[in-house]
Amino acid sequence: MMEERYFFEDFAEGRVFPLATKLVTAEEIIEFAAEFDPQPMHLDEAAGKASILGGLSASGWHTASMFMRMMFDGWLSRSSSEGSPGIEFMQWKKPVLAGDTLSGRSTVLESRPLRSRPGIGLVKFLHEVENQHGEVAMRGENPIMMRLREAQENAA
Amino acid sequence: MMEERYFFEDFAEGRVFPLATKLVTAEEIIEFAAEFDPQPMHLDEAAGKASILGGLSASGWHTASMFMRMMFDGWLSRSSSEGSPGIEFMQWKKPVLAGDTLSGRSTVLESRPLRSRPGIGLVKFLHEVENQHGEVAMRGENPIMMRLREAQENAA
Repeated sequence: MMEERYFFEDFAEGRVFPLATKLVTAEEIIEFAAEFDPQPMHLDEAAGKASILGGLSASGWHTASMFMRMMFDGWLSRSSSEGSPGIEFMQWKKPVLAGDTLSGRSTVLESRPLRSRPGIGLVKFLHEVENQHGEVAMRGENPIMMRLREAQENAA
Repeated sequence: MMEERYFFEDFAEGRVFPLATKLVTAEEIIEFAAEFDPQPMHLDEAAGKASILGGLSASGWHTASMFMRMMFDGWLSRSSSEGSPGIEFMQWKKPVLAGDTLSGRSTVLESRPLRSRPGIGLVKFLHEVENQHGEVAMRGENPIMMRLREAQENAA
């Protein structure tokens, strides 16, 4: 049986796509921070505890990158994605701490075919990443370009 | 001589803070993609050439993470930053290809003290990341919380 593949036509308004889950380790938090965001609360447990974040906490850019992988594994790898022009907004609502398990979902907000690029449509998503307590740690909206199934079939 | 430190009061509207420069290597593009965004155009030169990106290209989340480090090294590490609640928007305008050298700037758009957190103000920045051809590869806005110098001096 072939895996289901998602084309533009499958992204109906309101449809929900689960993200893969992700255990966040101290080692990963520190490794990412050392390369991209070496602020003390992302590098050191004691500095994290002393900060308003309350513990060794992932850089917001690390959380965003982990979200990307959770989305890829959850559904994007099986879609006709052609990439994204950007992020409409992204909010870091709660600290992501070492030992947290993240999960979440992408919800279709709206979609429209692109006049400028025949065969491609733009799908706008609300993404929500939660921790194991059900608290939203990060949320944001971004549009992703998707090939139309119709275009795929005409090309075949 | 002590390095200059930037407090809330130093972020006057229109003031420009240069980002550090960054050479983007193929190895780094592939390493980030393998962990966070394993789409073919971020993992493989031939797949990148075949895509609309025109070459082995960094994940947009990688560019955002590199930007964070360029900001840290450029000026944020010498500021009174207390972190950020999120991103207002982020646009990926041009592919970031292996061999590109990135530079850029953060420009203060506006600032205001926070009523809810005495001693802290919110500074909104426009961030621009350019390649070696002077093309804007990524741009976005985000607010960063900064301690007031006044609060620092009262506490001392």
